[in-house]
Amino acid sequence: MAQNKIQVGVLGATGSVGQKFIALLADHPWFEVKEVAASERSAGKKYKDAVNWILSSPLPESIGNLTVKQCEPNLNCTLAFSGLDSSIAGEVETKFAEAGYYVVSNSKNHRMDNDVPLLIPEINADHLDIIKNQNHKGCIITNPNCSTIGLVLALKPLADKFGLEAVNVVTLQALSGAGYPGISSLDIIDNVIPYISGEEEKMQSEPLKILGNFNGNTIDNIDLKISAQCNRVGAVDGHLECVQVKLKTKASIEDIKKAWDEFSGEPQKLNLPSAPRKTLHYFDDPKYPQPRIHRNIENGMGVAIGRLRPDTLLDYKFVVLSHNTVRGAAGGAILCAELLKEKGFINKETLYETEANN
Amino acid sequence: MAQNKIQVGVLGATGSVGQKFIALLADHPWFEVKEVAASERSAGKKYKDAVNWILSSPLPESIGNLTVKQCEPNLNCTLAFSGLDSSIAGEVETKFAEAGYYVVSNSKNHRMDNDVPLLIPEINADHLDIIKNQNHKGCIITNPNCSTIGLVLALKPLADKFGLEAVNVVTLQALSGAGYPGISSLDIIDNVIPYISGEEEKMQSEPLKILGNFNGNTIDNIDLKISAQCNRVGAVDGHLECVQVKLKTKASIEDIKKAWDEFSGEPQKLNLPSAPRKTLHYFDDPKYPQPRIHRNIENGMGVAIGRLRPDTLLDYKFVVLSHNTVRGAAGGAILCAELLKEKGFINKETLYETEANN
Amino acid sequence: MAQNKIQVGVLGATGSVGQKFIALLADHPWFEVKEVAASERSAGKKYKDAVNWILSSPLPESIGNLTVKQCEPNLNCTLAFSGLDSSIAGEVETKFAEAGYYVVSNSKNHRMDNDVPLLIPEINADHLDIIKNQNHKGCIITNPNCSTIGLVLALKPLADKFGLEAVNVVTLQALSGAGYPGISSLDIIDNVIPYISGEEEKMQSEPLKILGNFNGNTIDNIDLKISAQCNRVGAVDGHLECVQVKLKTKASIEDIKKAWDEFSGEPQKLNLPSAPRKTLHYFDDPKYPQPRIHRNIENGMGVAIGRLRPDTLLDYKFVVLSHNTVRGAAGGAILCAELLKEKGFINKETLYETEANN
Amino acid sequence: MAQNKIQVGVLGATGSVGQKFIALLADHPWFEVKEVAASERSAGKKYKDAVNWILSSPLPESIGNLTVKQCEPNLNCTLAFSGLDSSIAGEVETKFAEAGYYVVSNSKNHRMDNDVPLLIPEINADHLDIIKNQNHKGCIITNPNCSTIGLVLALKPLADKFGLEAVNVVTLQALSGAGYPGISSLDIIDNVIPYISGEEEKMQSEPLKILGNFNGNTIDNIDLKISAQCNRVGAVDGHLECVQVKLKTKASIEDIKKAWDEFSGEPQKLNLPSAPRKTLHYFDDPKYPQPRIHRNIENGMGVAIGRLRPDTLLDYKFVVLSHNTVRGAAGGAILCAELLKEKGFINKETLYETEANN
Repeated sequence: MAQNKIQVGVLGATGSVGQKFIALLADHPWFEVKEVAASERSAGKKYKDAVNWILSSPLPESIGNLTVKQCEPNLNCTLAFSGLDSSIAGEVETKFAEAGYYVVSNSKNHRMDNDVPLLIPEINADHLDIIKNQNHKGCIITNPNCSTIGLVLALKPLADKFGLEAVNVVTLQALSGAGYPGISSLDIIDNVIPYISGEEEKMQSEPLKILGNFNGNTIDNIDLKISAQCNRVGAVDGHLECVQVKLKTKASIEDIKKAWDEFSGEPQKLNLPSAPRKTLHYFDDPKYPQPRIHRNIENGMGVAIGRLRPDTLLDYKFVVLSHNTVRGAAGGAILCAELLKEKGFINKETLYETEANN
Repeated sequence: MAQNKIQVGVLGATGSVGQKFIALLADHPWFEVKEVAASERSAGKKYKDAVNWILSSPLPESIGNLTVKQCEPNLNCTLAFSGLDSSIAGEVETKFAEAGYYVVSNSKNHRMDNDVPLLIPEINADHLDIIKNQNHKGCIITNPNCSTIGLVLALKPLADKFGLEAVNVVTLQALSGAGYPGISSLDIIDNVIPYISGEEEKMQSEPLKILGNFNGNTIDNIDLKISAQCNRVGAVDGHLECVQVKLKTKASIEDIKKAWDEFSGEPQKLNLPSAPRKTLHYFDDPKYPQPRIHRNIENGMGVAIGRLRPDTLLDYKFVVLSHNTVRGAAGGAILCAELLKEKGFINKETLYETEANN
Repeated sequence: MAQNKIQVGVLGATGSVGQKFIALLADHPWFEVKEVAASERSAGKKYKDAVNWILSSPLPESIGNLTVKQCEPNLNCTLAFSGLDSSIAGEVETKFAEAGYYVVSNSKNHRMDNDVPLLIPEINADHLDIIKNQNHKGCIITNPNCSTIGLVLALKPLADKFGLEAVNVVTLQALSGAGYPGISSLDIIDNVIPYISGEEEKMQSEPLKILGNFNGNTIDNIDLKISAQCNRVGAVDGHLECVQVKLKTKASIEDIKKAWDEFSGEPQKLNLPSAPRKTLHYFDDPKYPQPRIHRNIENGMGVAIGRLRPDTLLDYKFVVLSHNTVRGAAGGAILCAELLKEKGFINKETLYETEANN
Repeated sequence: MAQNKIQVGVLGATGSVGQKFIALLADHPWFEVKEVAASERSAGKKYKDAVNWILSSPLPESIGNLTVKQCEPNLNCTLAFSGLDSSIAGEVETKFAEAGYYVVSNSKNHRMDNDVPLLIPEINADHLDIIKNQNHKGCIITNPNCSTIGLVLALKPLADKFGLEAVNVVTLQALSGAGYPGISSLDIIDNVIPYISGEEEKMQSEPLKILGNFNGNTIDNIDLKISAQCNRVGAVDGHLECVQVKLKTKASIEDIKKAWDEFSGEPQKLNLPSAPRKTLHYFDDPKYPQPRIHRNIENGMGVAIGRLRPDTLLDYKFVVLSHNTVRGAAGGAILCAELLKEKGFINKETLYETEANN
């Protein structure tokens, strides 16, 4: 059944993003997890003994019995998903790319590198070609910040149809975005934290590159002013964002809803395995979207939008919700890898490939 | 000991705001709760039997033994604090004012009436004089919405020193703001609700009147654009607000902090019993203010501010926190009543006054 | 595809249990929801307009368009699932049974009636025959209380293999057990409520009947002393129970684990559609089971057990967890209905049956 | 004003118990914090820079400016409160006692030592004399586990009046009991953890010593069977316990309530500064006690009891609640120190004493 699946490794496999990679890659039609790598402390143990599994879906038994290796570029796989901590991700990922691995990273380190695509496949699949500028045997592609992804997916049809002049966003972000153990219960029960280190900077810069124009050689940032304010709230999963936009051309509420409704991109066209059937879902009920009710829409790969209404300062305001560890992290990165594969980038001399009947 | 305290009644005494009035008025140096009034269903019962007391401070025994009356203007008191539901508050409060009672209301019904002051004593104590326009034997004064109060207190020094051109605010509001039973636990555990009915409209209109100019006869709204987005989060008490401002004249971060630090008003000058020593408190720690840590500052009558920083769209952004049931409701209304008393409005033939040694 | 499915109705369809029935019956291989009935207030509306849908799985469109009827025995269906409030369930269910409907109830009213089986299909499938004593054209069968079901499933193999002399149980019950809106958020955030009205009485009496012996004519309660203490905690779904047992014969820890591991009943034998593959799952990790991690085991129809260890007062203590709205309510009742059908009780002159290709 | 206050130090001053010591000792009439000691990592910094202050009461400025020292017995104080982690508390506390300090510890290490009293001043003030058996220049006295204290305070009057044969207890313990950062928010939102490492063992053994008889030389444990099961729930502060007791002699519900109502001990007789006016408070409302409502009773030094009712297995069952970081930790330890002082144990050549007018 699993004939010629591409062998993949997970870097930072014991962390919360690493675990989510493993859960989402179970039964993946194209990829098969063959290597799990983590810190020196875990290396040598069986994965099930090294990990403090925090997901509600069970740890796949075959993965549990893998031996954890160190994050050195001698893994027996073609593609490496990186959920590494940013304190080491930059250097490790570069080493893997130099050694010929296809690195799909959820870490922030290489996102703004000139020759690295910052991918949301529905939006900027064409940016993928910039990897040709990388002087590596392999390559690095990156997935944006968890709070950036939902926002930019909701903005893209507006940018295309009406033009964007300014964006204001205030987030209410879920706990899982801080990893595990992450936020202490004593800091969030009956409370809210109006600060997430580094988050506002990412939200103000990443969208400019994602929505930017790739001229075949470089990516030119879109010209757009963004202001972001980020808060941590007591939801487990699902980032909710209050968004205001100023458009370049006039648009009615119905125009905007239509733009969202009709939005579709490469993942839908290519029918990628992790692609949502429909990426953007608008809800008319004024109390929607809500994290617990809508975060799993399209298996967590969709984006829920609601409350579109005129704004007194900019033109319109609305609410966006997306699943931060699926669409906003592991799931989004897997979709990037699927695009990489379907676009033929993993075709030449793949390093290692699972043989038939294996 | 309690010589000549002014006798007060609480309308809507069994509700959550009514309870907070009763808790905060225990041991008040000027006011003594002599009457508790509620719906027909509760009337005739002892208060302690009629109420589902939800506060952590104990129900004062003397109040518990009062007999609940109906909300008819035959109560044995001079001043009436109203925590009535807006479905009936408008009419009942008018009846009480006509009958000669001084009505201090936390309900929304009369807030925008031309001859009714919408008071935050530090800000617009002079608006009180407009009650002379009311054709009642008594009068009605009102307290703003819970989410408006903290915001406007933080804005007032900026309006005075630098001028305000535009304000953007996104709230993360506490559960107690919805009353009791209010929000179902099933709607908020592991969740956020991006909608509070009618709240955004209040936040966009009330500040204009509060910051308006009273020319001796009418209140002229301030000219200011405000956009509000309101969310409900899982904190018990304490509304947190992400604010952006555009100023009329240039101001540095230090200028703004100084304006907040030096802010003081009539309650401080008159040394009103419920007045915070200092109303606005700025915190330098970037993760502050937080509801659970700062809502009780100045016994819940202070406002905590933090995270002042430049904004890419407007001029500055910052975070404001205030206690929604103290400063934002019962405590704020009591401060209004103290102002009314100290300004000599309750002096003529008070209807009923507690006798000495009573 | 849906040839000759049995037409079912849901009584109390707009309530939280009613909604769960509808969600779990979507795509059921044997049953098809054809009628939704609720209070007079909802009757006449489309279901989607009458209901405040609180589940995260979407409301099936075909059900949403059904017209809500009143709970009168003129519904076009053969079997009626009842999620009615106990204030009216007793009388309404009797009327339906008299009129010839097969009533499967989750309400408490008829549970202890002499001629009504209190069913947990793995445990007392044979009790079903007692419906022959009912003098109705149709019949009533009942599902136990949500906190009873998990407990008794864990106790049954011990009762069979080693005999039970005494059981002590202290529960930590989830919020959904109180229905919607149920528990106010202000009563449970940063809190626990050590009281659930009527719950301890149910847990002390229902197991005696469920574990009782059916002699062909009457059910004789098992002779067993049970003490229950019930608490409400802030989990959304999943009742956790701390259990102590005194056995009649000696058993080792391994004996008990083996008894649980080997436990199986009629639902497994008959391969009923909602039957868990394996009902009881033991976890060795001392911090397991936990509501958020294990409540969905076997699609919410399984029971998670852990922490088996010797007790100083009775013989052993352990922890049991089960999903209160699936196994403990709607899912459990559906399993009862499946048993009813498979045992041939719905075979004679069924009142109404969906025609082929309908 | 602060004439001849006893100088105290806090060991483990930056931890959560250490912080609570500092907060509760602010303005203490007898003790004055002069030294704060912590790990090597913090030593040398100002306390306010070394600590991540997590309490809602502000850090006293005078303490904030103290320089953190290492936990070596060269501190300039007479008495040392220890909130040290148990991994090092045993050895450090011994060193301090040998050097002549009076050590009052909240750590578990020395609790069961033969010559160390395990004190709850209302219960076993006479055990204090056993410190004469310690071969130290100073001494060590200990405070029981946080979940033990509330339980044993409720049991003591029953043991005295009716005799105790067996006790069963199941706890629902608050998050602050795990320290800071302690429990990850991801482990407790919408969840419960049925396990607290080592807790059940403490609850089954400590009460035997506390309720034991001191014959002038040794403490003989009381003869009593206790079974404990411990759970972690999402309350911030306040341990709730479901208790069952078997008595040696018959007692009515009224007898037991009377025994609780009349209970009083040395702290009340000596009028110790931290003593609750009345230690045990019984509530008739069946839904009480609750953590958020009752944990602060008597400034957190009281114990709330409710739901006394007959039990089917033992004789009676009831619910106990106490504040785990006040009565159950820092506050309880301070009360022990007050007893030590008032009983004249800190009278000889105190090492260092604050001079008058200091």
